[in-house]
Amino acid sequence: MRIAVTAPSRPISPETAERARMVASERWGAAVELVFHAQCFLQDGHFAGPDAARAAAFAEAANDPRVDAVWFARGGYGSGRMVEAALGRLEPAARSKRYLGYSDGGVLLAALRRAGFEGAAHGPMVDDIRRDGGEQAALRALSWLVEGDPSALEPSLWDDPRPALAFNIAIVSGLLGTPWEPDFEGRVLMLEEVAEPTYRADRMLWQLTSNPRVRRVAGIRLGRFNQVVPNDPEFGRDEDAIAREWCERSGIPVLGQADIGHDAANKVVPFG
Amino acid sequence: MRIAVTAPSRPISPETAERARMVASERWGAAVELVFHAQCFLQDGHFAGPDAARAAAFAEAANDPRVDAVWFARGGYGSGRMVEAALGRLEPAARSKRYLGYSDGGVLLAALRRAGFEGAAHGPMVDDIRRDGGEQAALRALSWLVEGDPSALEPSLWDDPRPALAFNIAIVSGLLGTPWEPDFEGRVLMLEEVAEPTYRADRMLWQLTSNPRVRRVAGIRLGRFNQVVPNDPEFGRDEDAIAREWCERSGIPVLGQADIGHDAANKVVPFG
Repeated sequence: MRIAVTAPSRPISPETAERARMVASERWGAAVELVFHAQCFLQDGHFAGPDAARAAAFAEAANDPRVDAVWFARGGYGSGRMVEAALGRLEPAARSKRYLGYSDGGVLLAALRRAGFEGAAHGPMVDDIRRDGGEQAALRALSWLVEGDPSALEPSLWDDPRPALAFNIAIVSGLLGTPWEPDFEGRVLMLEEVAEPTYRADRMLWQLTSNPRVRRVAGIRLGRFNQVVPNDPEFGRDEDAIAREWCERSGIPVLGQADIGHDAANKVVPFG
Repeated sequence: MRIAVTAPSRPISPETAERARMVASERWGAAVELVFHAQCFLQDGHFAGPDAARAAAFAEAANDPRVDAVWFARGGYGSGRMVEAALGRLEPAARSKRYLGYSDGGVLLAALRRAGFEGAAHGPMVDDIRRDGGEQAALRALSWLVEGDPSALEPSLWDDPRPALAFNIAIVSGLLGTPWEPDFEGRVLMLEEVAEPTYRADRMLWQLTSNPRVRRVAGIRLGRFNQVVPNDPEFGRDEDAIAREWCERSGIPVLGQADIGHDAANKVVPFG
């Protein structure tokens, strides 16, 4: 099978691409072909090429009938700038594929799910291979893309049949009110965060849990809050306590932890 | 007349309060009494006292028939945590007053306007007196609170009869989808920002201009983008260019500059 990689946000290096190709090759040999779009290596300021190039590369991979799945190269910031153009170019062949990424890529996953695509999932990206233990993350991502391997899934999904969504808190709060806002109704919403000062996490959780549509979730599971930026002065409560407080105020059940985050242990959550 | 000061977000010092009292006293003598609620000086971690104390102090000032106007002491972060409780306690006497603040206080202003209050306005807060030229800012704020002085107003309001709103970009994008989201229909929306990395300003403007309700504004005026946090790598365009790009993409007219921002020159914008 063929897996295409494009970079909706920031670029990766050719060395990183080569490492991912090695992981796929060692595990599946010639049965899995990892194809990196040249756009992955473009650099345009912050971005992996101009908005139009990122949208075109994504649509090209998604529309290609020889491609079975699309894997996002890296997050950062940028998919919001290309989502409208990218979605507008998708053809019927794009519907049957799996799509995997997270963080900033959550914008694209939300838009795909909103457009009725059933193969969008939160999970490790190519650039995660550079983390400690990153080859395991890449292998987990590929196992899901190639085989739908259940061991790649966030463990609560083994028992809980309810549809799920997983997002970075900044990304999902940024989606609120846009045409790509997810349908939260009855979903288990898993949330993770990285590198945010506590007051911002608090403000984003306020926005999220104040939203009447978000309040229709089945409940929230808390992923990891990594690299928290210390608040000055001391905020007085940690991210976990903050999230639980907002859930309590808004009547949203906290269902427990979620094994997701900006780290090598990040698990796969198909968007239901 | 009597102006009450409460702190919906962060505290001020008694020295700052005293300086503001001096400014009022030099200009208006005994005709204007500036009354600082003791809650202004509370410190609870990041906040000017617990959420309940901030909500109670605000409601007390707003409901007091002897008080003519309510002036916010300082921004920072915190009004979202108390807005629901504060608004829930307001009585009819609160409706006829002027309310002045900005930045994080925009949450409270939006909620007041949304609840039908006609006296909410963006403008300098007490703590701005500590800036270079801050006594002018305090005097401008007081001139509007006391006399509705037209020279305190953002200059485009002298000629443009359309209703206006003014917000910090982070605050107004955070309000989207909440019960306190402003009614944007036909309004001139003035935006300012402070201390945000460029990619975040871009993401917030994406959220804002992608919103179908925001797209019903009469147009956007651009205030100052102060203390921009440099992006790494170089983002490739500045905040003004970013805002203009999103307005163009979304079909929102850019009406020009707005004389507002996190600085001593910040002008008053009554919420229409």
